[in-house]
Amino acid sequence: MTQFRFDLHATDGAARCGTLHTAHGPMDTPAFMPVGTAATVKAMMPESVAATGAQTILGNTYHLMLRPTAERVGRLGGLHRFMNWPGPILTDSGGFQVMSLAKLRKLTEDGVTFQSHVDGSRHVLTPERSMEIQHLLDADITMCFDECTPFPATLQQAAQSMRLSMRWAQRSKDAFIERPGYGLFGIVQGGVHPELRAESAAALRHIGFDGYAVGGLAVGEGQELMFSTLDVTVPHLPADRPRYLMGVGRPSDMVGAVLRGIDMFDCVMPTRSGRTAQAFTRRGTVNLRNARHQDDPRPLDEDCTCPACRHYSRAYLQHLVRSQEILGPMLLTWHNLQFYQDVMKGLRRAIAEGRAQAFAQAFLDQEAAGDIDPA
Amino acid sequence: MTQFRFDLHATDGAARCGTLHTAHGPMDTPAFMPVGTAATVKAMMPESVAATGAQTILGNTYHLMLRPTAERVGRLGGLHRFMNWPGPILTDSGGFQVMSLAKLRKLTEDGVTFQSHVDGSRHVLTPERSMEIQHLLDADITMCFDECTPFPATLQQAAQSMRLSMRWAQRSKDAFIERPGYGLFGIVQGGVHPELRAESAAALRHIGFDGYAVGGLAVGEGQELMFSTLDVTVPHLPADRPRYLMGVGRPSDMVGAVLRGIDMFDCVMPTRSGRTAQAFTRRGTVNLRNARHQDDPRPLDEDCTCPACRHYSRAYLQHLVRSQEILGPMLLTWHNLQFYQDVMKGLRRAIAEGRAQAFAQAFLDQEAAGDIDPA
Repeated sequence: MTQFRFDLHATDGAARCGTLHTAHGPMDTPAFMPVGTAATVKAMMPESVAATGAQTILGNTYHLMLRPTAERVGRLGGLHRFMNWPGPILTDSGGFQVMSLAKLRKLTEDGVTFQSHVDGSRHVLTPERSMEIQHLLDADITMCFDECTPFPATLQQAAQSMRLSMRWAQRSKDAFIERPGYGLFGIVQGGVHPELRAESAAALRHIGFDGYAVGGLAVGEGQELMFSTLDVTVPHLPADRPRYLMGVGRPSDMVGAVLRGIDMFDCVMPTRSGRTAQAFTRRGTVNLRNARHQDDPRPLDEDCTCPACRHYSRAYLQHLVRSQEILGPMLLTWHNLQFYQDVMKGLRRAIAEGRAQAFAQAFLDQEAAGDIDPA
Repeated sequence: MTQFRFDLHATDGAARCGTLHTAHGPMDTPAFMPVGTAATVKAMMPESVAATGAQTILGNTYHLMLRPTAERVGRLGGLHRFMNWPGPILTDSGGFQVMSLAKLRKLTEDGVTFQSHVDGSRHVLTPERSMEIQHLLDADITMCFDECTPFPATLQQAAQSMRLSMRWAQRSKDAFIERPGYGLFGIVQGGVHPELRAESAAALRHIGFDGYAVGGLAVGEGQELMFSTLDVTVPHLPADRPRYLMGVGRPSDMVGAVLRGIDMFDCVMPTRSGRTAQAFTRRGTVNLRNARHQDDPRPLDEDCTCPACRHYSRAYLQHLVRSQEILGPMLLTWHNLQFYQDVMKGLRRAIAEGRAQAFAQAFLDQEAAGDIDPA
């Protein structure tokens, strides 16, 4: 039986490449994990998600507990079987989305009481209930229940919030049902305050987790502050455990974070942008709504191997977008996910070959020189 | 170079099976042709359409002339290349859709003047312009420009409308640019009046076409009147040319029409129903909105080989529909198209083996005994 294990293959400065082994298979790192909020990576067949090179996808506790409910998913054999994704699945704890999506939230030491945005029904999330839900979903990687500290927050607010999350981290660890191949990640909080990040990392190390996430970033603080926070946080995390930057991000965010020692990412950006006609390419972002593409026979990105780039012109993609055809989101989502995976693949190879800095510089230069459409 | 040619392989009563050869490949008949209105079979990758067994798809002159325009498609290499469909394409003439979709139509002997439903712009469709558009689109099968007689219509109205269509058929034939592998179909009109259908068929035979369509049915007359109209129309069509029943239909419509000598069909029903949660199965129609499916671990149709049936439960499909996830229309459209192709495949085999009547009876019995959801 597979043990939950992280093998580090190579390091290059702070950057690392490795493989995380889980009950449902391996994930090579640095890795981007597509978001499958409601048990589907929107507009994609799971086979197509896998074809891009993605090995792990994300499920959202908040959405799934409301619909179709964790108990129903559990009765139907777990999330892998329910959504036909045989590979690893990471679920978030629900904490972040309860605070950003639910109505009439009430936060106490015990947890969060809230009203569903779907039907107004009343629910409670606690560390114990979050662990139970993620267990029912059969997540390979379970996340601690935490409070995502809002930005901006005073030092005192950020400290109080972080310390609550640390108490919840202990309760999450206590409630987590260990099984071979399944792991639990702690989440470092503390806003943009270096001393709080250090305190949080120490608290989590003391409890002991299978992996460590950096939470509370990509919430409006900007790339510079995100990177400087990583610079003061990552050194406090154990080198032999995977590090996950939650909810990040733009391609350049990920490249910079990998240089700072991050192994895992998730973000709705490639999928959401695919549904709003924005494509990420090696030469910047392209907005397919723009009329300048309507007679353009060229592919979106001539160096991309996805179906959107191999078989179609920009003119056709523009036509799909303007006609509001479902195939538009399907093809653009596929392309964006392929691009994100290609960036990760390039990073993994560059790290293994000791040229991570050069790869990052070339990536940023090419992106900056490209043809960027107004969004 | 491929000639446009229809090979008849077997007959069984009035039913026939054969192969139509076109510039972009063959089509085995009886055939169902999925509708790709705006240069996409909605919610489907073209590879997936082909995977169901479909060999020919339909494009709509009316939609494509308005957006992205026939001239643009022509500049970009034709419809096959534009939409990545290497197989045969049939385009309608625009006549039917101008009358049903456009605003402020004006019909004269010359053609139809109308306002686009997209942007209100003014356009003219004549037999000559319809031939030009279908040529620019590079349709393997071009349809004559006709007026679809409304139902109900008096004998006099139906006669006048049909005779106009026959004059337009001659103009279509005169304007059609012949090329090896490309064919032009005439369209029999005449409403539900046997003498007009006979007159129309004779007029078209006199002009001479590569195939003969039956138009003006499935417009509200009901299955019984549709079948009786076929009974009095098909005998007037040449046996050595393919016969196409336009815009039909429900599975039982197609089965009954094949028994009456029809070779080709198109209809938006499987694709449109796929987007509104209705699935066609061997045991009747299933409405995935129905809450009774929410805990059902069974596949939609256990005898179906499509991805929706092989990899997912009814519970999951119901979840996708309720959550308005794009994957719902994707999977249900795929299933419905697979089902339609399976019906055609079953009919072809049954005709070849001389058991078309028995196949049809078994099909209708099984459908009638099935679990039909209220729509």
